[in-house]
Amino acid sequence: MSIATLDTSQHHNLPTSAKTLFEAKAKKKVTFEEIAQKLGREEVACAAIFYGQARASPDDIKNLSELFGIDHAQLEEQLSGFPDRGKSIEMPPKEPLIYRLYEIVQNYGYAYKAVLNEKFGDGIMSAIAFSTKVEKETDKDGVVWVNINLRGKWLPFTRF
Amino acid sequence: MSIATLDTSQHHNLPTSAKTLFEAKAKKKVTFEEIAQKLGREEVACAAIFYGQARASPDDIKNLSELFGIDHAQLEEQLSGFPDRGKSIEMPPKEPLIYRLYEIVQNYGYAYKAVLNEKFGDGIMSAIAFSTKVEKETDKDGVVWVNINLRGKWLPFTRF
Amino acid sequence: MSIATLDTSQHHNLPTSAKTLFEAKAKKKVTFEEIAQKLGREEVACAAIFYGQARASPDDIKNLSELFGIDHAQLEEQLSGFPDRGKSIEMPPKEPLIYRLYEIVQNYGYAYKAVLNEKFGDGIMSAIAFSTKVEKETDKDGVVWVNINLRGKWLPFTRF
Amino acid sequence: MSIATLDTSQHHNLPTSAKTLFEAKAKKKVTFEEIAQKLGREEVACAAIFYGQARASPDDIKNLSELFGIDHAQLEEQLSGFPDRGKSIEMPPKEPLIYRLYEIVQNYGYAYKAVLNEKFGDGIMSAIAFSTKVEKETDKDGVVWVNINLRGKWLPFTRF
Amino acid sequence: MSIATLDTSQHHNLPTSAKTLFEAKAKKKVTFEEIAQKLGREEVACAAIFYGQARASPDDIKNLSELFGIDHAQLEEQLSGFPDRGKSIEMPPKEPLIYRLYEIVQNYGYAYKAVLNEKFGDGIMSAIAFSTKVEKETDKDGVVWVNINLRGKWLPFTRF
Amino acid sequence: MSIATLDTSQHHNLPTSAKTLFEAKAKKKVTFEEIAQKLGREEVACAAIFYGQARASPDDIKNLSELFGIDHAQLEEQLSGFPDRGKSIEMPPKEPLIYRLYEIVQNYGYAYKAVLNEKFGDGIMSAIAFSTKVEKETDKDGVVWVNINLRGKWLPFTRF
Amino acid sequence: MSIATLDTSQHHNLPTSAKTLFEAKAKKKVTFEEIAQKLGREEVACAAIFYGQARASPDDIKNLSELFGIDHAQLEEQLSGFPDRGKSIEMPPKEPLIYRLYEIVQNYGYAYKAVLNEKFGDGIMSAIAFSTKVEKETDKDGVVWVNINLRGKWLPFTRF
Amino acid sequence: MSIATLDTSQHHNLPTSAKTLFEAKAKKKVTFEEIAQKLGREEVACAAIFYGQARASPDDIKNLSELFGIDHAQLEEQLSGFPDRGKSIEMPPKEPLIYRLYEIVQNYGYAYKAVLNEKFGDGIMSAIAFSTKVEKETDKDGVVWVNINLRGKWLPFTRF
Amino acid sequence: MSIATLDTSQHHNLPTSAKTLFEAKAKKKVTFEEIAQKLGREEVACAAIFYGQARASPDDIKNLSELFGIDHAQLEEQLSGFPDRGKSIEMPPKEPLIYRLYEIVQNYGYAYKAVLNEKFGDGIMSAIAFSTKVEKETDKDGVVWVNINLRGKWLPFTRF
Amino acid sequence: MSIATLDTSQHHNLPTSAKTLFEAKAKKKVTFEEIAQKLGREEVACAAIFYGQARASPDDIKNLSELFGIDHAQLEEQLSGFPDRGKSIEMPPKEPLIYRLYEIVQNYGYAYKAVLNEKFGDGIMSAIAFSTKVEKETDKDGVVWVNINLRGKWLPFTRF
Repeated sequence: MSIATLDTSQHHNLPTSAKTLFEAKAKKKVTFEEIAQKLGREEVACAAIFYGQARASPDDIKNLSELFGIDHAQLEEQLSGFPDRGKSIEMPPKEPLIYRLYEIVQNYGYAYKAVLNEKFGDGIMSAIAFSTKVEKETDKDGVVWVNINLRGKWLPFTRF
Repeated sequence: MSIATLDTSQHHNLPTSAKTLFEAKAKKKVTFEEIAQKLGREEVACAAIFYGQARASPDDIKNLSELFGIDHAQLEEQLSGFPDRGKSIEMPPKEPLIYRLYEIVQNYGYAYKAVLNEKFGDGIMSAIAFSTKVEKETDKDGVVWVNINLRGKWLPFTRF
Repeated sequence: MSIATLDTSQHHNLPTSAKTLFEAKAKKKVTFEEIAQKLGREEVACAAIFYGQARASPDDIKNLSELFGIDHAQLEEQLSGFPDRGKSIEMPPKEPLIYRLYEIVQNYGYAYKAVLNEKFGDGIMSAIAFSTKVEKETDKDGVVWVNINLRGKWLPFTRF
Repeated sequence: MSIATLDTSQHHNLPTSAKTLFEAKAKKKVTFEEIAQKLGREEVACAAIFYGQARASPDDIKNLSELFGIDHAQLEEQLSGFPDRGKSIEMPPKEPLIYRLYEIVQNYGYAYKAVLNEKFGDGIMSAIAFSTKVEKETDKDGVVWVNINLRGKWLPFTRF
Repeated sequence: MSIATLDTSQHHNLPTSAKTLFEAKAKKKVTFEEIAQKLGREEVACAAIFYGQARASPDDIKNLSELFGIDHAQLEEQLSGFPDRGKSIEMPPKEPLIYRLYEIVQNYGYAYKAVLNEKFGDGIMSAIAFSTKVEKETDKDGVVWVNINLRGKWLPFTRF
Repeated sequence: MSIATLDTSQHHNLPTSAKTLFEAKAKKKVTFEEIAQKLGREEVACAAIFYGQARASPDDIKNLSELFGIDHAQLEEQLSGFPDRGKSIEMPPKEPLIYRLYEIVQNYGYAYKAVLNEKFGDGIMSAIAFSTKVEKETDKDGVVWVNINLRGKWLPFTRF
Repeated sequence: MSIATLDTSQHHNLPTSAKTLFEAKAKKKVTFEEIAQKLGREEVACAAIFYGQARASPDDIKNLSELFGIDHAQLEEQLSGFPDRGKSIEMPPKEPLIYRLYEIVQNYGYAYKAVLNEKFGDGIMSAIAFSTKVEKETDKDGVVWVNINLRGKWLPFTRF
Repeated sequence: MSIATLDTSQHHNLPTSAKTLFEAKAKKKVTFEEIAQKLGREEVACAAIFYGQARASPDDIKNLSELFGIDHAQLEEQLSGFPDRGKSIEMPPKEPLIYRLYEIVQNYGYAYKAVLNEKFGDGIMSAIAFSTKVEKETDKDGVVWVNINLRGKWLPFTRF
Repeated sequence: MSIATLDTSQHHNLPTSAKTLFEAKAKKKVTFEEIAQKLGREEVACAAIFYGQARASPDDIKNLSELFGIDHAQLEEQLSGFPDRGKSIEMPPKEPLIYRLYEIVQNYGYAYKAVLNEKFGDGIMSAIAFSTKVEKETDKDGVVWVNINLRGKWLPFTRF
Repeated sequence: MSIATLDTSQHHNLPTSAKTLFEAKAKKKVTFEEIAQKLGREEVACAAIFYGQARASPDDIKNLSELFGIDHAQLEEQLSGFPDRGKSIEMPPKEPLIYRLYEIVQNYGYAYKAVLNEKFGDGIMSAIAFSTKVEKETDKDGVVWVNINLRGKWLPFTRF
């Protein structure tokens, strides 16, 4: 089983907690799937905590501290602030996997807008009141597919 | 029912077919849902044809010609080439609805990569062998949610 | 009394409705204050409709048609779609008045974040469930001040 | 009560005083509201001092020194220069909370200009002779709203 | 005597008034010095009106109409709005003459800030409550020098 | 009296001499006015030496060494090379004071060009054979104004 | 025989493994041709591993460890994660050799698209299911030519 | 058989010849393969002539004139100048097919450099003394592969 | 003999004179060498006039009018203004020939500075008091070389 | 005599050899003219070696080692790799001296192309098979001029 790791020499803007958590993860060789089970959260949310893109609750901190044997006070100090989101990546992304997600927005952005406006009216899908998950699908021909679900609250524009 | 339209004075890089199709759509007041039913395709794919981001098959062209009463030869000439994708939008997107999708990539890009790498190995989710759809969900509290599904083939990096 | 006008030779990405409305406004010499009274909306919202940044309701269209004597069908055709927001300006703004607003975000962005996070928790102030208004204040020394109010719904990040 | 903190590994251009002050704040667990009371200033102004975006007066330095028990001479050395403003953020902002403020300027910039020009003439709202504050509002349905007030002196363009 | 003209095929964002005025100026072969005398304004201010960067007063419009024999109503329509400043140039400037001014800001920007802060305190020199003029100087060796004077009101940062 | 200082943690591209000189200046609490008197140069030129934007002559180095009690050999080593100009700032400038100077070029760039071309012919004002100074003016109403003088040699384009 | 080396002071975003491997390569003076023979892979793939752009298999790690006498555990820790591709270069490339490859895409990009679309239909050549190799050719006149082969799987766009 | 066409409303910088040639091609429904046979050139070179990226020889012009029945004098006038290369595309490319080629340079740029330097010394592969061709390969499993060959003269850096 | 022409559909920012002159040149089939002889100027200067980058003197206008049989008044109107330089190209240049010149500056820029500073002191080579010419050289092996000479006045930085 | 030096705190992307060589040069106080005599190369080439933009031959390394008394093995290790060109500067250049060279390309780029195409056909002047030198000229009036010669092989585009 392969483990996603972080080489901090390639990322100059991540919070200190990223280094702490990824080093513990590599040492203990646990996957985000296992972390997600421990925390009772989605895998993507767990990975987002590691990259400083989601907030860890006091329970999450306690669980991470237990799982990895990291001193609770240290982890609390590093994780209890508010995430400074958006710093983990330069846009447009250069990483091919992430670029493909970007390309989907680039190619289908206006198509999504047109369909969403017709279905929901004038507004947006929130990226804040929002969750996402990833699933693996193997079709009858043995071909492997990725399924990503994005679920966000519909926010209509206020009339003023 | 509201209809998504196109004001060509705001879009300088769309194909001629975009103007033809959106004008017909506005005149006939049909939604992408109705177009999707006629073509037997997903709504997003239909909207993508309108924006020049997806290819119309000969059947699609025939159906669009019938649905809107556009001369078939004219539509065939405008739609039978290969889409010149990526021209419908400037990145980063300024449109708030599309920006939220971009922000999801910006915030969770590396989290998706970490989770996908652990689940699937070294590779990418294709944006070509790919489909997407949009669904509306009203939860028990009456709150409205958008569900976007992204489904792409997993492509492992070739060893060479 | 001065009237805000639009020179379309300086704006290449505005919707057709912008030209229609601004020409009518210049001809009839009405201010956004008068338009706001007619529409029962805030002045900024009215100006945003003119620039294609806010949606006009059927009543707004009817009122604008009456106020300016523009053919209702023509105005409905131009205004009944969904706004393609963000196209009225290139960022960073070059216009000195708009630059000052941009500069406020540039200088105080993180200060707002820190104060809002402490007061409200982990989330954002919505720019969609949002309204704004402008007021004039003359202090006791006769100095004139601008008061801009921004009011947005607080959206906490979803835990997932 | 949550405390806004600063992870200096994510901010490479802040003054030395930012580190000193945020570390003291995290250690003592005081909010900007409490700091504002001590200094007799607005919360946003206090946070701006922490981020190096506003000047601390000799009294502010004395009060901060007392509040946090930081050596007065050290704080004076770090804070008595003139702020080198604009270094705390890269534009366009990636942080979702700050992006929403940026988006308001992007969407309503010309609308503000049109309304301000009509109300005040040819000029700008100063971002220097300027103050701002943040207030929390809970409406009758229990919905929480953010109110941001921007107040700036009106500066008419000089005729020359 | 050479006359500064405008080739509108090189400037896509100037107001309609720029074309009207520059064509009249080229036809009548008058310099900005002569225009300045007629209007009782500085030459740079007059040129700025031509480029849509400064506002023409009702008297200015009357004078320009007389000087060039342009229909007053037409000129009033084109010039009575509020200037949409900053559209005449792309930055960094490519024109060598303008680049040299830009280079002065680039090289001496922080030096000006340091000197101004020491002389005036924490604030800025206004570019709104501002005037400028250009003078020609021939020194005793017959060498020709340009003297540009920038005069702006000092605006101290408000304490809040 | 306030002293302009340098926080090197905010400036990553300044020469070593900047740190040496600004630290000495802060320690000795001297202004650029006093330095200018010692060196027999303009204040802006002195500040430019501190920021690595102007060359120090052997006499300047001797005077700076005396004034601040810095070892002459060390200062000579740091200051005797040729300035690598343009590294002290990122453009467009974010600092509000410097931005206002930039905005003047942005707004009046073509106006200056038109006036200079008519007054001097086809050429540029040199930014090399160039000097500048800053003066304080208090008008009869007690209002404080900044006067910046830019004086550059006129260079006509060579015919070839 | 010349050896390609890496000066890490010029590359701030490469993984730690790049330093480890290039130092070993320089010390042992082996070429990528020799490394390719040892690993049973193409030279470009080997160089890509060194720059963190391709994944090393467990066998590759073992072979590299043997070839260079690097501790296996250390190399495994540095190389067993998933490559964070795209970080080795800033685009557009400034290096003349790499720029020429970029220029080929810039000049012939649409020509490739036209030919590929006609030959293969609507789709792309994969850069993931992809291999490449470099060969040297000396023609009959003794002129030396580079032959680069790019081989990628054809991926047709999914109809949805 | 599908035909690659050009929608000039999506390309604002192509030469007039592009419109002439693509319109003739669409009308006559010939592929670049057939054009290549007529001209005795590679398909990519032919497509490059259509996009204004390669020069047509007098014979090419004669052959294109015959093949499409375009007036020879008109074609000669449009094609006999020197190509203004690089105008057919904005970089980074947004078109997915072209992006994949760009991504190959982005990911393997330094790997190519390292291998080429070791094999050939200090120099570059020319993109001028250069040819390229595309071939289709169907492997034994029926999978379709694209083979792109790049062949350029090796140019060593001159010692001076 | 080949003639350099201009396809105005590829250049949106050139002055009207560019179209007039290039059309006349293409019609009369004269080279810049012949134009240079007629005007008594360097070829590059002549081409620069055609691209709006150099000023034509009254004699130049007379000569061009005679050479091409263009109405003198029309040419005088188009050419007698001051060139708006820098508009003929976007940087970095995409045209391979021009890119190579850019690359020389990119690669050797600091080397030129170091050598010039040592030879001439602190200053610059003027690009205004400047001329340039191009010569063809065929060496003894029949290899063709381009020689470009750049000659600019040395301007020392003013001490102030 | 002034010596060109390097302040490494201003250059973050130069190779280690740059520091080694410039420190030795500053210590020994030798000019590039003297280095050029020792190496039998042009001054610009020598400076380019110092900035990591040109390759040092084994003899060059030996000579540099002798001239500066640097350990030969250390210098060989730092200099024997292949230059990673283009890293010494950010474009557009901010340094005034280098900017003037850039401006020459910006202003005369298309003029050079037109003249070179007419004189040499369709191709480019190589920047690889290329040399350059700098000479000082004092004209009869005592005015000092810089002469820069660029000499590159002419490379015609291959027909394919």
